[in-house]
Amino acid sequence: MPTTPPPFTADDYRARMDRAALAAADAGFAGVLVAPGPDLVHLTGHRVPADTERLTLLVLAPGRDPVLVVPALEAGEAAHAPAAPALTLRDWTDGRHDPYALTAPLLDAAGRYAVSDNLWALHLLGLRGALPGTDFAALSDALPMLRAVKDARELERLAAAGAAADAAYREVLRLRFAGRTERDVARDLADLLRRFGHEQVDFTIVGSGPNGADPHHEAGERTIRHGDMVVMDFGGLKDGYGSDTTRTVHVGEPSPAEQHIHDVVREAQQAGVDAVRPGVACQDVDRAAREIIEAAGYGDLFIHRTGHGIGVTTHEPPYMVEGEKQPLVPGMCFSVEPGIYLPGRFGVRIEDIVAVTEDGGRRLNTTDRALAVVE
Amino acid sequence: MPTTPPPFTADDYRARMDRAALAAADAGFAGVLVAPGPDLVHLTGHRVPADTERLTLLVLAPGRDPVLVVPALEAGEAAHAPAAPALTLRDWTDGRHDPYALTAPLLDAAGRYAVSDNLWALHLLGLRGALPGTDFAALSDALPMLRAVKDARELERLAAAGAAADAAYREVLRLRFAGRTERDVARDLADLLRRFGHEQVDFTIVGSGPNGADPHHEAGERTIRHGDMVVMDFGGLKDGYGSDTTRTVHVGEPSPAEQHIHDVVREAQQAGVDAVRPGVACQDVDRAAREIIEAAGYGDLFIHRTGHGIGVTTHEPPYMVEGEKQPLVPGMCFSVEPGIYLPGRFGVRIEDIVAVTEDGGRRLNTTDRALAVVE
Repeated sequence: MPTTPPPFTADDYRARMDRAALAAADAGFAGVLVAPGPDLVHLTGHRVPADTERLTLLVLAPGRDPVLVVPALEAGEAAHAPAAPALTLRDWTDGRHDPYALTAPLLDAAGRYAVSDNLWALHLLGLRGALPGTDFAALSDALPMLRAVKDARELERLAAAGAAADAAYREVLRLRFAGRTERDVARDLADLLRRFGHEQVDFTIVGSGPNGADPHHEAGERTIRHGDMVVMDFGGLKDGYGSDTTRTVHVGEPSPAEQHIHDVVREAQQAGVDAVRPGVACQDVDRAAREIIEAAGYGDLFIHRTGHGIGVTTHEPPYMVEGEKQPLVPGMCFSVEPGIYLPGRFGVRIEDIVAVTEDGGRRLNTTDRALAVVE
Repeated sequence: MPTTPPPFTADDYRARMDRAALAAADAGFAGVLVAPGPDLVHLTGHRVPADTERLTLLVLAPGRDPVLVVPALEAGEAAHAPAAPALTLRDWTDGRHDPYALTAPLLDAAGRYAVSDNLWALHLLGLRGALPGTDFAALSDALPMLRAVKDARELERLAAAGAAADAAYREVLRLRFAGRTERDVARDLADLLRRFGHEQVDFTIVGSGPNGADPHHEAGERTIRHGDMVVMDFGGLKDGYGSDTTRTVHVGEPSPAEQHIHDVVREAQQAGVDAVRPGVACQDVDRAAREIIEAAGYGDLFIHRTGHGIGVTTHEPPYMVEGEKQPLVPGMCFSVEPGIYLPGRFGVRIEDIVAVTEDGGRRLNTTDRALAVVE
């Protein structure tokens, strides 16, 4: 049964905020401005809706205490945020304060700040109006790896989320596929993820037969038949950290041609995982997997990047894609998920989450990658 | 039983986009840049997740065809958007195109653009990088009333959403309150909203006894008791348009003091609605309601603004708040929802959606506002 790990403490968050401020300084920035969403969750544990016109902003600068600017109506909740003991709250009231004028004295008027990618234009333009001499850069350009390197306790949670997704996969294999719709199986996968401890299900892709050839197909009313390949790609959040795994199964015995395509993808996935080690560029993981598929003659049918990071979201930097030269660092965590898609026929994808260790990569998903035969 | 209205056509959306471009030109802008979210839904009917690092942007300029910049992976869906026949799609591919460089030739390099409030900083900074001479302003500052004035077919949908919320309220009065938790009643309200045609439930606030004194309380494990005041504030989307209504009920007969507070709020809400007519400033609606509550001696206990707009979201401009001098215009649609909150004791709030007509205001919620006694 799923267990709940001990919560992160204010000291954990304080350490993360300090590291972020120092990383910003190293990169030539005066600090970091953090908007509600995954950056704020990662740095403070504070979950607030990101779709609000009222400014909430965490201001980090090296050598200064973190300040959270927050609407007065939400100050009570902010005072209970996991990082609250490490934060100074600065609240503002509708109609009484201009939140940008209130934030301005917290910033270096001639400084350059890294801002969360998802900070609203409304707020960025408001800050620029209050501080015409300040410059801004998007966090994913300024400090692309800020959330990418996970600490030991984050890795524990990611491993636990992966183990829960694996348990869901093992259970789903025991269910009947033929005669049920993709949506039926998707619902089972969602229920299983929750049963094994996920508090949030982000996606349960079930692509049977020709639907499997579209990597963006989710799950529809198609009835799964004997003889179908079925791609299942599923994940969500368990205790705040993400899972994301894909297995492709076959209803009844596969043909030799189907088995061959699956073998190629499995070999490509293994090559991608084998390429993982500190210092290797992200694009080399993509290349390692892609070379196998190209050598087998299916290069044109592998139509997406090989992987993406995972953490407090199921989809974040770093990206395993041609052109991404960022070197791998121990603690990074990302998917390795090559696929082959035969339009009108079927698709195969195999995906595990891999954590970079001191000398290689460790899979956080450990279920069998062989082509499972289901009923 | 709920019926589905005929969908908006590409011509409906074309007319909205044309009006937006002309309004921008009138206000001195070269055009409007629209991000995924409510602005894009209103102008094109295209619903895409707003939380994506991949640029999707609608470019509107007077006298030019609207262009939707879209990631290639999502171009298929965009081609099926309700406004698609009125749009030119310009797609871009990960790693092959820079989406900002691709967007730049669509803009006037020396122009000033109104941008959706919720456009990501990542994208605004990317556009600024590609077009250093272009200037940007937030849409809510530049064209605050862009979505505020509803056309006849939008008003029909808002009225239908209001009628569905009213039907839910009538049903909930027949249920038992005493002995059940706030969350039980909240779940009933959500089920009823769905039964009467809502595809999305945004909130079902149930604040019983002292919890009603916190306007931000949602619904908790408190068991409702005989003698409680209960504030119920609920709404969501029906056929893409919002409902939002509040009624306060009493479990068993109210005391004279409770009845008095409710009478004051009811009179204040009536005064707010009576103040609605074209040309009156938004803040005058707030003042009209507030004056009644102040005259009764409860001014300090009315701790929020009187109302907010509603449309493709349940919470948008215009705001009925001191300082908002925007005059009302026929077709605007917003809540009138004064309240009195007695800390530690109870709260009362009454809310209807009101549409501005040619000569006054029309309530879109029509259930009885008297203090209902429930069991």
